Amino acid sequence: MHRERFYTLSASCPDRTGIVAKVSGFIAEHKGWILETALHAEPAVEADKRGRYFMRIEIRADSLPFMLSEFRERFRPIAEELQMDWKITDSAVKKRVVVLVSKQEHCLYDLLARWQSKELDIEIPCVISNHDTFRGVVEWHGIPFHHVPVTADNKAAAYAEVQRIFEEVHGDTMVLARYMQILSPDLCAAYPGRIINIHHSFLPSFVGAKPYHQAYDKGVKLIGATCHYVTADLDQGPIIEQDVIRIDHSDAVEDMVRYGKDIEKTVLARGLRYHLEDRVLVHGNKTIVFR
Amino acid sequence: MHRERFYTLSASCPDRTGIVAKVSGFIAEHKGWILETALHAEPAVEADKRGRYFMRIEIRADSLPFMLSEFRERFRPIAEELQMDWKITDSAVKKRVVVLVSKQEHCLYDLLARWQSKELDIEIPCVISNHDTFRGVVEWHGIPFHHVPVTADNKAAAYAEVQRIFEEVHGDTMVLARYMQILSPDLCAAYPGRIINIHHSFLPSFVGAKPYHQAYDKGVKLIGATCHYVTADLDQGPIIEQDVIRIDHSDAVEDMVRYGKDIEKTVLARGLRYHLEDRVLVHGNKTIVFR
Amino acid sequence: MHRERFYTLSASCPDRTGIVAKVSGFIAEHKGWILETALHAEPAVEADKRGRYFMRIEIRADSLPFMLSEFRERFRPIAEELQMDWKITDSAVKKRVVVLVSKQEHCLYDLLARWQSKELDIEIPCVISNHDTFRGVVEWHGIPFHHVPVTADNKAAAYAEVQRIFEEVHGDTMVLARYMQILSPDLCAAYPGRIINIHHSFLPSFVGAKPYHQAYDKGVKLIGATCHYVTADLDQGPIIEQDVIRIDHSDAVEDMVRYGKDIEKTVLARGLRYHLEDRVLVHGNKTIVFR
Amino acid sequence: MHRERFYTLSASCPDRTGIVAKVSGFIAEHKGWILETALHAEPAVEADKRGRYFMRIEIRADSLPFMLSEFRERFRPIAEELQMDWKITDSAVKKRVVVLVSKQEHCLYDLLARWQSKELDIEIPCVISNHDTFRGVVEWHGIPFHHVPVTADNKAAAYAEVQRIFEEVHGDTMVLARYMQILSPDLCAAYPGRIINIHHSFLPSFVGAKPYHQAYDKGVKLIGATCHYVTADLDQGPIIEQDVIRIDHSDAVEDMVRYGKDIEKTVLARGLRYHLEDRVLVHGNKTIVFR
Repeated sequence: MHRERFYTLSASCPDRTGIVAKVSGFIAEHKGWILETALHAEPAVEADKRGRYFMRIEIRADSLPFMLSEFRERFRPIAEELQMDWKITDSAVKKRVVVLVSKQEHCLYDLLARWQSKELDIEIPCVISNHDTFRGVVEWHGIPFHHVPVTADNKAAAYAEVQRIFEEVHGDTMVLARYMQILSPDLCAAYPGRIINIHHSFLPSFVGAKPYHQAYDKGVKLIGATCHYVTADLDQGPIIEQDVIRIDHSDAVEDMVRYGKDIEKTVLARGLRYHLEDRVLVHGNKTIVFR
Repeated sequence: MHRERFYTLSASCPDRTGIVAKVSGFIAEHKGWILETALHAEPAVEADKRGRYFMRIEIRADSLPFMLSEFRERFRPIAEELQMDWKITDSAVKKRVVVLVSKQEHCLYDLLARWQSKELDIEIPCVISNHDTFRGVVEWHGIPFHHVPVTADNKAAAYAEVQRIFEEVHGDTMVLARYMQILSPDLCAAYPGRIINIHHSFLPSFVGAKPYHQAYDKGVKLIGATCHYVTADLDQGPIIEQDVIRIDHSDAVEDMVRYGKDIEKTVLARGLRYHLEDRVLVHGNKTIVFR
Repeated sequence: MHRERFYTLSASCPDRTGIVAKVSGFIAEHKGWILETALHAEPAVEADKRGRYFMRIEIRADSLPFMLSEFRERFRPIAEELQMDWKITDSAVKKRVVVLVSKQEHCLYDLLARWQSKELDIEIPCVISNHDTFRGVVEWHGIPFHHVPVTADNKAAAYAEVQRIFEEVHGDTMVLARYMQILSPDLCAAYPGRIINIHHSFLPSFVGAKPYHQAYDKGVKLIGATCHYVTADLDQGPIIEQDVIRIDHSDAVEDMVRYGKDIEKTVLARGLRYHLEDRVLVHGNKTIVFR
Repeated sequence: MHRERFYTLSASCPDRTGIVAKVSGFIAEHKGWILETALHAEPAVEADKRGRYFMRIEIRADSLPFMLSEFRERFRPIAEELQMDWKITDSAVKKRVVVLVSKQEHCLYDLLARWQSKELDIEIPCVISNHDTFRGVVEWHGIPFHHVPVTADNKAAAYAEVQRIFEEVHGDTMVLARYMQILSPDLCAAYPGRIINIHHSFLPSFVGAKPYHQAYDKGVKLIGATCHYVTADLDQGPIIEQDVIRIDHSDAVEDMVRYGKDIEKTVLARGLRYHLEDRVLVHGNKTIVFR
């Protein structure tokens, strides 16, 4: 399952003619070998506005005659001409993912299995939890575990501690793997597009607490899960991935919880992977996901 | 695809011991041959209340020594003892389904194809529409077509006319096959559990007008459709069936409309079939669907 | 649902650096406005071989300073340099789709509904059938109907007649909408990548006759349908689209047939649309589908 | 998520009138409180044969005036009259599940997580593997781990050792959680309906080795997994559960392997749960699954 080292350029800019020609021309000029290209033109919402163009390009590292720093320098003029928001990342640099959990095991075990087998080729510098439940299994895997209790009274201090740890371990992404706590607006604002949550409903239905109870009361015939970026608005951030599973009248709330777990962990893993591979580009409150 | 004639007993009653024994004992005593049985105990919501028991039993007509009227008479004491809501129907009596449409073709053509091939073995005594668009194809199939325009000013009269026609043709079920009009509360109240709507969203998300536009703005990754009984509360009646389909950022609203049509017609056809086969038992604002 | 006129360039060529730069450079040079781009590099099967590159680009017609014929002429040198298989089509020229049916209604009605509403913006110059069953509904829609009986003795003559009609009406694509007849090898060979079939199983399971019976006997828990190009090998041509639906032990063969119809018509409609929009590029016995 | 103790009666017998009346009558006579009932009549394959009737009934243990042994004794005459294959199990007696793994982690971690949280309320008396890879994580969970290498030369001895361990720990069910070895016919024959495998394809497609490679070569648009009982015929035993996931041309074999893992573990967990809850009744080479 080895892949050669590659760079991933992801970018967006106002739509116009010649964007692809300029960018691919630059890469071709330096003999860059493109492994994968995904492009999307988002139409203008109003007729007199311009649309926006999104792209994601994987280039084989050894096909280029220079390193990433020089790529960045040489590409800058083109990016500026096109008014691009852009970044380029290196597949050889593993992302550092801090996992936050509470007392439910399914997403944690799922992430550990994927990390252990290198299916998710990431660093997990630590796991943070408001309970001590999973210290054993996490530490057994050689991953530091931080117990940061959260109570009605200590929220500000607790989230400051979470942020301190995240900074200290140089975290790239924070994953709320059924963390069951509402982060402070400050913490949300500190890491836009870098905190990922799994919500146990098919949003926008059933925001907030006990979504399976809400779904049971409503009598829906499918239940779902939603992986999204965390913003200060509870369960309202840009959606990355969703999926559903069929239930029927014979399923009690606890059955729905059980079915839901399977969807939650799969949706979280898919959404997280898209994010880590720079496949997700945020556009307002929506996402472009180049799968 | 021929099946022998059968009776369908559907019933619900307060839960207690011995319900199945009493009902199946009655059937066995008369040598009734059971083709299909579905049972469900809905637990009590509060600890001191009783749950409710639901059942649906298909019995081969020719296995019983009497006709439906005598079945009803003989079964009545048992039903009364069990405090049952119940009915029994005869597969040889075709249900009469009145279809209401507007200007979208997909659900109408789909129902016509199923009716034409006897996949849906029903009578369609007439089609009613607020537009004249589909008169031709409906009448070509030998089905009467009624154009009942609905305007801001004539709603009361228009729905009175719809009701008059429905009564005149002895309709059993009214199907809103993308009718795009909100029925009057009076009409809804006149036929509880007999008017079926297809809503083009995965309810409870995106109630009301232009659900695909709402879904587009929200950036959901799946869109759906919901078949439900119509009540006076818009898009809030008991849900019979739902399904979803995956979309992504490249899908414009018109793509979503197109994908949605395929879900809408399938979900409507499934929900309608469940209803016509007496597989749907309403329980408060939810349904038991014995698929 | 109106879209502006556009050209669709679809092409494949041996993989190398600079392909996208050359093609997008050509388009940009002439101020072509790209609406949609999809690219795919198929890796080499053997290490010493080259992979193959696939592309599909939609360009707004009115953004280019010349017509399609001049585009073709000017683009030819680039295509030759890249050793491309390529074509470019015009959204203003409707594809001519000849539909072949037998005695099952569901795919035919489904295609008629999509054609009637312009969801499928095609010409249907005629319908051909080995039975006279659907003459009425087809002719009512203003579409010529040809009854070409097929018997054990007249196959060669019958398929020659089908081919004659297809040529006479200048058909682009032939759709076997549950035609239930095996075309002659000659006819298959005459139109590679232009005859589309819907097979009522999830291929490669259950090739040939009575796939639902085969599925029933095997006890599978999902049944499916497959839309594929027809080749001389029965049910073995390149797969365009597939889908499945859940069944269980309570479903008899006739229930599976009924559920299957819903999958068949949806899968056929999706596959046909991909084909008509030049989204399907054949690569050996597989397809690239730029959805 | 606590449920009261209950007994599960599962049975099949030749179809006739009065089966349900007799069984439910017996339960009612003893004031047994039925929690869940599922019934199915499998029609006769040939017209002059009888069909077969299947049932599964959950009865609250504390509603009956006697223990399981007395239930068995009292029920025996009815079962004999009806020529039943039957058993009754007690929810308070945990099933003992022996897990066999090789070097892939996903199904093992998934089962451990479900076991650890009591979502699967079972005993895992030991894990057996032909590799030593997972000794650490298994033993950390307090579960004995047996390394039983399997080579071309020692198969008979190795499987004898597997059987010896299974017997020694009083295993009820053996789960091949991606064990990747073909059990000996003797071992298969020793435990009919008690060995469960997860095969990484949508059977009957892609039997045997490297099914994802087979799927890739065929160009299918969905891949799947199948949970089935193991018989001496490789990948041919009765199917318990299946599911699929969509792929496309951009997915390499290693992507399919990755997507497949998510389906494999979910399908295995669902199938295993059905089995453990006595929801699966084998009928020839097919299963009745009362979900």
